[in-house]
Amino acid sequence: MSVFEHPWLGGLFADPEMAAIWGPERHLAQMLAFERAWSVALGACGLAPPEAAAGAGAVLAAVRIAPEALRSGMGADGVPTVALVELLRAGQPGPVARAIHHGATSQDVLDTALALTLRDCSGLLERRLVTLAETLAGLEARFGAAPLMGRTRMQAATRITVRDRLLSWRLPLEGHRARLAALRPVVERVQVGGAAGDRAALGAQAQAMTDRVARELGLGSTVKAWHAMREGVVEYGSFLSLVSGSLGKIGQDVALMAQQGLDEIALSGGGGSSAMPHKQNPVLAELLVTLARFNATQVSGLHQALVHEQERSGAAWSLEWMILPQMALATGRALAAAQTLLGQVVRIGSPD
Amino acid sequence: MSVFEHPWLGGLFADPEMAAIWGPERHLAQMLAFERAWSVALGACGLAPPEAAAGAGAVLAAVRIAPEALRSGMGADGVPTVALVELLRAGQPGPVARAIHHGATSQDVLDTALALTLRDCSGLLERRLVTLAETLAGLEARFGAAPLMGRTRMQAATRITVRDRLLSWRLPLEGHRARLAALRPVVERVQVGGAAGDRAALGAQAQAMTDRVARELGLGSTVKAWHAMREGVVEYGSFLSLVSGSLGKIGQDVALMAQQGLDEIALSGGGGSSAMPHKQNPVLAELLVTLARFNATQVSGLHQALVHEQERSGAAWSLEWMILPQMALATGRALAAAQTLLGQVVRIGSPD
Amino acid sequence: MSVFEHPWLGGLFADPEMAAIWGPERHLAQMLAFERAWSVALGACGLAPPEAAAGAGAVLAAVRIAPEALRSGMGADGVPTVALVELLRAGQPGPVARAIHHGATSQDVLDTALALTLRDCSGLLERRLVTLAETLAGLEARFGAAPLMGRTRMQAATRITVRDRLLSWRLPLEGHRARLAALRPVVERVQVGGAAGDRAALGAQAQAMTDRVARELGLGSTVKAWHAMREGVVEYGSFLSLVSGSLGKIGQDVALMAQQGLDEIALSGGGGSSAMPHKQNPVLAELLVTLARFNATQVSGLHQALVHEQERSGAAWSLEWMILPQMALATGRALAAAQTLLGQVVRIGSPD
Amino acid sequence: MSVFEHPWLGGLFADPEMAAIWGPERHLAQMLAFERAWSVALGACGLAPPEAAAGAGAVLAAVRIAPEALRSGMGADGVPTVALVELLRAGQPGPVARAIHHGATSQDVLDTALALTLRDCSGLLERRLVTLAETLAGLEARFGAAPLMGRTRMQAATRITVRDRLLSWRLPLEGHRARLAALRPVVERVQVGGAAGDRAALGAQAQAMTDRVARELGLGSTVKAWHAMREGVVEYGSFLSLVSGSLGKIGQDVALMAQQGLDEIALSGGGGSSAMPHKQNPVLAELLVTLARFNATQVSGLHQALVHEQERSGAAWSLEWMILPQMALATGRALAAAQTLLGQVVRIGSPD
Repeated sequence: MSVFEHPWLGGLFADPEMAAIWGPERHLAQMLAFERAWSVALGACGLAPPEAAAGAGAVLAAVRIAPEALRSGMGADGVPTVALVELLRAGQPGPVARAIHHGATSQDVLDTALALTLRDCSGLLERRLVTLAETLAGLEARFGAAPLMGRTRMQAATRITVRDRLLSWRLPLEGHRARLAALRPVVERVQVGGAAGDRAALGAQAQAMTDRVARELGLGSTVKAWHAMREGVVEYGSFLSLVSGSLGKIGQDVALMAQQGLDEIALSGGGGSSAMPHKQNPVLAELLVTLARFNATQVSGLHQALVHEQERSGAAWSLEWMILPQMALATGRALAAAQTLLGQVVRIGSPD
Repeated sequence: MSVFEHPWLGGLFADPEMAAIWGPERHLAQMLAFERAWSVALGACGLAPPEAAAGAGAVLAAVRIAPEALRSGMGADGVPTVALVELLRAGQPGPVARAIHHGATSQDVLDTALALTLRDCSGLLERRLVTLAETLAGLEARFGAAPLMGRTRMQAATRITVRDRLLSWRLPLEGHRARLAALRPVVERVQVGGAAGDRAALGAQAQAMTDRVARELGLGSTVKAWHAMREGVVEYGSFLSLVSGSLGKIGQDVALMAQQGLDEIALSGGGGSSAMPHKQNPVLAELLVTLARFNATQVSGLHQALVHEQERSGAAWSLEWMILPQMALATGRALAAAQTLLGQVVRIGSPD
Repeated sequence: MSVFEHPWLGGLFADPEMAAIWGPERHLAQMLAFERAWSVALGACGLAPPEAAAGAGAVLAAVRIAPEALRSGMGADGVPTVALVELLRAGQPGPVARAIHHGATSQDVLDTALALTLRDCSGLLERRLVTLAETLAGLEARFGAAPLMGRTRMQAATRITVRDRLLSWRLPLEGHRARLAALRPVVERVQVGGAAGDRAALGAQAQAMTDRVARELGLGSTVKAWHAMREGVVEYGSFLSLVSGSLGKIGQDVALMAQQGLDEIALSGGGGSSAMPHKQNPVLAELLVTLARFNATQVSGLHQALVHEQERSGAAWSLEWMILPQMALATGRALAAAQTLLGQVVRIGSPD
Repeated sequence: MSVFEHPWLGGLFADPEMAAIWGPERHLAQMLAFERAWSVALGACGLAPPEAAAGAGAVLAAVRIAPEALRSGMGADGVPTVALVELLRAGQPGPVARAIHHGATSQDVLDTALALTLRDCSGLLERRLVTLAETLAGLEARFGAAPLMGRTRMQAATRITVRDRLLSWRLPLEGHRARLAALRPVVERVQVGGAAGDRAALGAQAQAMTDRVARELGLGSTVKAWHAMREGVVEYGSFLSLVSGSLGKIGQDVALMAQQGLDEIALSGGGGSSAMPHKQNPVLAELLVTLARFNATQVSGLHQALVHEQERSGAAWSLEWMILPQMALATGRALAAAQTLLGQVVRIGSPD
């Protein structure tokens, strides 16, 4: 039913590359990556016998788990990790079983997996921001000097150049790259807290464990679990909406420019109508507006989730699960759609 | 990636019955139901020769279309209907092809299909509201007289009875049933407008066509297409959020009552923890809060979509597609989860 | 700092009539109206000696309280009513003092005052909806037959008439009148609950007191306090946003129609520019869009406030105070601005 | 009617220091500061004769304008600047009048004034973040070692220390200081664009003018007007909501800790009840939750305003005016209230 995964709506809304990053298979792989790093760290920090840790590592490297196998556990426990750990430990000798997940908790697994997902997501966003900025620079080179009626409050104001308009599309993308560069270390951090987030089960090895798990996964380390400090996650969501918002402005501008009577842009492609086959609709331009307004809506829910009570709020945490992936899919799609749309430009500028 | 359809998150969030109503197969069936009713009406109103209309009806009754077949058309046109109509007409003799979709437009198909979906959705909501109210009445009968510490501003106030608390859970459900009864005729209306929403292609038969299509589908008729008047849809979304909000209050109350130290409710079941196997978490109570806050977030996006420019806004319309089904799934799940949760109650009331 | 009360922003955003309804003076008067009705009812129901009740009524009729006198109490108690009751009782003989507010609580006062405010607010909205619909009917009479290019997805579609467009502006107003008529009895209800909302302090007279207070104030009675059942308030907020959303569509349409190159509407008046004195900006059309998006934002916060825990949530309740009056001001202003804007129309229709 | 300025609600919600920063008097002063800097720069860049520029500067230094004087112009023009410039130029000799505002536009004045306001606002936020973090460090020193029941999913989990909980309150504040430091240069930038944002009226002096105005005001310069690039403003709003969200978590925690039956915190002060005079309500704790949910609601509207069409959207721009100041007031109040609340702590930790 989600537009991002729908058999036909997906034809407009889906972003396969971003979907692969946020999909269940990859998510499960990220959870297992955490568990492997954890077992390695348990061995390295003396919290599990070396051979047991090695055995656990081997189990975790070889294990194949069907996503559906976690479904009933998720329903019962509100997290997939209780069922996951049970599956991982099943049939293993005691020492190996104890070298799996020992001292960790669900939030450690799921939030570290999220950090890994955000790393991939940020990489994709960064690449697309660069490409899109290049496309815009190309349009600037081709059409920048052409005259365009400047419009304020939807009224003709004074003549500007196409470059002036294009700069207001491209410069924000540069700002977003800077934002993303600053944001990545904030969210690409390991989550290690244990049961109530105080790392108590890890004793004197708590920081060493955290550092080691971080190193194994190529993430930043932390001095305190961020179980109940969700600012980074919410800031990331805000960033996603900033990006889709900038693209929404582009889409709105294109839709306005494409109006008959203004004719300030010419596009190849564009969608048909079931009643007016001759009509060319700037479908992707409208899509950019839709995705911007969608994310502007969602961002509110993430901010509500900052009220994350005590050591772990199931209610606030799962609100993040409902919203953040959808925002990433929307932003990914917006970048891809903007790229396609701007690639269809055959002319910009006021007609003579 | 949507929690409602996710292989394991679905174990907590999915509502199979509601999903069947909003799923693509059923949606496609509703679109075809519109097209059949349309062809029948074309014949009845003299806008297509009787035998052509009958032929179209036969085609539409027999046709099998894979949802994926509409995907690329959706991407190109921003609606699935251009591709759908093409598939329906393919290979048919001219008169039969012309008795399909003639004078209709995408919004007629999609919005009428939505009206049919909302009819099914409302039926399910109504049944669940009744059942849940009965469950609450049952709890009232069992525990209503028991004392409970009344709590205002999260502080112990004065003793009340369990009945007092339960009434604040049950009475809103009665209000919701009344709201739903009033709302159904507002949204269970046929959409007939044609290309620019003025029914011009239907000429003098416009109202007769509209009435006939409405009658065929068991929907209300209209004197004017509601292409660009989205108040009913948005009001429906507001209703969904009112319902999930009322259930969120129940969930929040249960989560607070279940706190150690208060012990005002005892539940059978409840979720485990990967770090603390002994712990019983009121997972469904938290889920109700999450779903309430999710819908309270989404409702904003639907209201934004009221700014639906001119005769059809692709941007505003597709924002509805992104949001409304998710809200229905959330509300459906909230009702089901509340039913399960309240069925797990083995005691309510302050301990002695 | 609020645009509705700002010394210069108010020139665009303020609605003096609506502000008078929601202002502190009137609010205080409504609180005192509740207290008077309450004292009368105490006397009538035998919960206060007749002469004490009469004395209390006289005190309440004569008392003058400066709004600022409640400020420090509000800061300390989170409600103005503790300070208010103290002021009312100050210097009164014991029996008279005891015939004031006895058995009531802050929520009874504030929510009943809200019900009275909503009654006034609804009256104003109703009158403006009627007037605006008449204005639109007048435009229809003058320009309805004129041709207008129908526009779907911001693209020229097929010719329609001005009437077709105007109907999509006017018909929703009729729907809103019906909504308002159905909604008024839901919110114009007395709030009577006492300390923890169970009316316990009123004993056997609880329902009689409730009925009597309701009768005194011309409000509906209730069988249960709605302290913790906020659906009516939230539905009212949703209604406000539905109205401003419909007007936002009008504003967006007008702004688009006023574009040079389309020239589908001519307006007398319109705003200037500090840099381009010749330019006429459709300021009120844009304002309608702004107010629609403002309310579409706010409605989310009201829905969040449905999660109103236990017998009274200070957090959720005061979120209503922050949001609902602003929404009413926005809707009031939108109706007034639409009236002004549509009164400025000197021509609608596509130029030849 | 706004809670931040209301005669009695202000007792709970008002923040006088923040209100002074965002109030109309200061706003007007910031606009005049821009105009003075502009006149100075006109003279320095050879766009006005030196003596005319000096005369303009003298006028601008001496002028006294009542905020209400801009009201009717605001209503007519949708901005206060047309009226303001008229007032400034009134009665001045032609050359002096032409050395005022020449080549500037409303957005230059209003957005530069906003940048100055944000500078003051950020200074205040920074100071309060520092003070609040110190207060939390003090609580940590006093109570950090005390045991506290860790609570996950609102259920008792394992014992932690008070320090563990306090760290989840304090560390986000450090993050916010870093965010603010990074954000300040993004928003403390001069706005210079002229009529359609392309600085055309400034000719070859455009960049010199921009640099000079920036230098006069102590703001950053820009290579392109940000009239239609609102990412910085929206990011600032997101930051405000991140801060109030972190404080909302503190408030929610305190409200939960203060429950009878948990008794994990003792506070001096707390609010009364009109029905239960003995009751102590954690009013400020609830206020923090309210303010967090308020800002989490508002942030959505700002993100909607990113869809800022063409060279200037009156609709999107004025949506910022409606929302951003309220968010700043809410965040300011939340910081002050958190400071007061945490100063009232006389004990934290689980009772024995």
